[in-house]
Order: sequence, then C-alpha cells, then structure tokens
Amino acid sequence: MSYTAWIISIGNELLIGKTVNTNAAWLARKLTLLGYNVRRIITVPDAEEDVVEVFRDAVRRGVRVAISTGGLGPTFDDRTSEYLAKALGRKYVLNDEALRMVVETFKSRGLELTEPRLKQAKMPEGAKPLPNPVGTAPGIWVEEGNTIIIALPGVPAEMMSIFENYVEPKLREIGPRLHFVERSITVKGVPEADLAPIIERGMKMSGRVYIKSHPKGHEIRSPLVEIHVYASAEDARGAEDEVNRVINYLITAIRERGGEVLSG
Amino acid sequence: MSYTAWIISIGNELLIGKTVNTNAAWLARKLTLLGYNVRRIITVPDAEEDVVEVFRDAVRRGVRVAISTGGLGPTFDDRTSEYLAKALGRKYVLNDEALRMVVETFKSRGLELTEPRLKQAKMPEGAKPLPNPVGTAPGIWVEEGNTIIIALPGVPAEMMSIFENYVEPKLREIGPRLHFVERSITVKGVPEADLAPIIERGMKMSGRVYIKSHPKGHEIRSPLVEIHVYASAEDARGAEDEVNRVINYLITAIRERGGEVLSG
Repeated sequence: MSYTAWIISIGNELLIGKTVNTNAAWLARKLTLLGYNVRRIITVPDAEEDVVEVFRDAVRRGVRVAISTGGLGPTFDDRTSEYLAKALGRKYVLNDEALRMVVETFKSRGLELTEPRLKQAKMPEGAKPLPNPVGTAPGIWVEEGNTIIIALPGVPAEMMSIFENYVEPKLREIGPRLHFVERSITVKGVPEADLAPIIERGMKMSGRVYIKSHPKGHEIRSPLVEIHVYASAEDARGAEDEVNRVINYLITAIRERGGEVLSG
Repeated sequence: MSYTAWIISIGNELLIGKTVNTNAAWLARKLTLLGYNVRRIITVPDAEEDVVEVFRDAVRRGVRVAISTGGLGPTFDDRTSEYLAKALGRKYVLNDEALRMVVETFKSRGLELTEPRLKQAKMPEGAKPLPNPVGTAPGIWVEEGNTIIIALPGVPAEMMSIFENYVEPKLREIGPRLHFVERSITVKGVPEADLAPIIERGMKMSGRVYIKSHPKGHEIRSPLVEIHVYASAEDARGAEDEVNRVINYLITAIRERGGEVLSG
C-alpha cells in the first residue's frame, strides 16, 4: 500500500505572491508526522480548468490522500466543491448533513440563510461534510478509487481546526503507522561543499535515514550550515537510534575536519 | 503569445514541512509585477523521477518561463542540473563559462577546487550560466522550444541576487510589458458572505479587474475582511483608473450595507 499524499493549494493570491503558503507547510508537517509521504504541493488558480485537472491527476495517479485548501467560501470564485464534483464526474448536490451544519451555525447566530451561504452546503454526490468549529464552510471528505480527497477552507484557523478535529484522527487510523524522527545540528566554519563528502558517507550508513544540509550564513566568508537528519520508520526507537548513530558520526567527522558544532 | 509562468520548487524540506516556501511567493510576486501569468507553483522532492517529470511537463505545455529553485548545491542530492539535462534529452556537460565563474570564485578565496565544487559548473548542453553574486553555484538559463527554463539555487539570498541581476532584466525585455496595479481595503463588521454579492457586482464593472476577499477576523463574531482589487494591463494609467473605480464602488456599497472601511 502506498501512502503518498498531495497538497493542493487553490488561490490566485498565492500565484501573484500576495500570500506565502503557510497552509501547505503546516499540512506537510502534519502529514509527514502521520507517516505519509508528501510527494507534491501544487498551487493552482481559482479557475475551473486548473482545479479540475489537478484533482483528476491525483485520482488517476492513485495518490492515497489529496488535501486541498481554499475555494470553499461564499464569494463568486469559491468553487472548489463544484470543480471537485466535475473532476470526479459526480453530481454537485445539496448535502443534507452539510445543510444541517450550515443552518445550525447561522440560526444560532441569528444570520440569514442567503444564497452565498447555502452554496457552502453543496458538495459532490457521496461526499461527507466535515464540521467547521471556527467558521461556516464545512470541509469535504470524498473517496474515489484508491484516493481520499479532502477539501478544506483556505483560512488558516478554519483549515487547522477541521484538520485536527476531523481529519487527523482518521488519517492516523488508516495510515502507515510510521514514526517520523529527526535531529538537526548546526555547523560553523566549514563550507557546504566540504561537508558534502561527510554527508554522503553519513547517508551510506543507513538505508532509511535522509540527510539534508541547509546553508544559513554566507557560503564562503562565514559558512553556517544546518544539517537535518530524519527517518520514517515503523519502530520509533529503532529510527531514533539510527538517527543518533548518524548524527554522532557527523559530529565526529566535522570536528576532525576543524568545524564547530554549535547545537545538536 | 502566451506569458504563462511556472515556479518549480525542488526540495524535500518543503514536502516534510520543515521550510515554508517563501522563495515561491517572492518569485510569484516578481513575475506578476513583470506581467507574467503565474499558473502553477509545483513543489517536488529531490528525486530524479519527479524533477524530470515537472521540467518535461513545463516544456510540453509550452509554458513561457519555468523557474526552479533548489538542488544546485554541492551535496549528493543537489542534482537539478543533471535532471534538467535528462528532461531536455541533452548531454550534461562541463560548461566553460560556468567553469570560469566557479574557478574564479574559489581561487579568489583560496579554496580548493574539489569534486563537489566542480559539479556546480556542469550543465545541460547549450545552457547559459548566470553569475551568482552571493554564493558559488551559478544559475542556469536554457531554452527549449517556446520555453525558457531558469534554475536558481534554493538559498534565498543567492536566488534573489541572481534573479534581480541577471533574470529580471531579460524577462522584462522579452515580457508582456504589462503593468500590475492593485489596491486593498479592509472591511469591519460585514461577514464575507454578505460581501459576496457586492464583490460580484464589482467584478462585473470591469473586464480586467479581479477582486478577491481574504477573511482575517472571526467570520461570525467579529468579521474583518481584506478586499484585494487588482489588474494587469498594458496601460498603467487606465488600469489604475479602473481599479480605483471598482474600489470606490465597493466602499460606497459596503458603507450603505453598514460596514466600516478601515483602510484604502
């Protein structure tokens, strides 16, 4: 069973550089900690052609989980739910359960049930609404073939609240039951290019540990490099031991090379 | 002539949620201001299959400009240049001009020209290196069919410096010569759903203005919504007038509806 995940970010504001995509980083972190292998983050505009295409791609390629953010609000271009129905070849219908959620939210606050609000209860046929503890638009959970598609609002507080309350527990249940383990060290005084052979030898010490260097300072004048070591494994303890073994090797080799290890 | 652009972000650190993709937002903003239509931001892991696929897709679909970040460093998984050569079906060769840049950088700093450093001078055949004023890895400019592919380092200071000095002037020259004009207002006291019909009428006032609302406060209890109005047009003055006309309409309609316009 493959546990690949895609994150689909919908919104012109991301493509014109008005907004930094913090939602995607947050979801990527969550999915990684749940043991999923996030293979793509794809940002598309609020346009039918693009949104339909990316959902279809995720299903066609058998991605296990595709999570989208954005396009569930009340305005004219919030049409993720409609495009998702189209991508799946399903009807776009008023969902009874979603309607109850939406009606309840508005009635309890004495707000009118206008057309833009009612729209938030329309979903692809067969979808399951996810309650929104913070806002009004329910999230959407729908399965097609091997793929679970989850559509969440773009407002970070709403996205996070639906995810933590109604998505995370389910994804943990059906998930790969892997543990993500990581450690970082920061190295001063050795250019990244001179760390490269050390890192390569560290990689060869373990089949499941990945090492990535992140230059922080000025490459030549005052090199400062973070080295991030991580692994996903069924047994957390074994993975931890392996990460530590690699980290210890790196620290020793870097000190021998004259580098200073600042943290770790 | 189409002026679509893709941003391709390469790096596992983005997919495990370790790093927020600020590079993509910065590039998206730059490209938008140059008049390009950024249609996709795609994040892929440091893996041959994924990097080759996304470069091939960009060329196959005739994207005008595809800019990648990441994978130009000295470590084992910095292989963007090699994968790009593969995607284009070209040889991966030592580039004379790049070699001169790399040798000069290292010699002037008294550093050895090691294998990981030499790798940074290898490029797809026919590519042009872009000088790196901050670090050691040159950027890459290569054209295939209708598509210009530009590969930049992932370290933000290096990416920005190469872009501003050697990419931006060229993209402006060959670009669509469009002006991007924008204005925002912030509205207090009206839920987004009640702004929806006003925004829709605003959209219909102009064929080239786009309006997007961004909820900031709590949707029901204390609604605070930013409304962003923008346009790309050949004549900056005309676009500005149109954006202002739409903004003025929105302000009037929102005040009539009892909303408070905080800024703009």
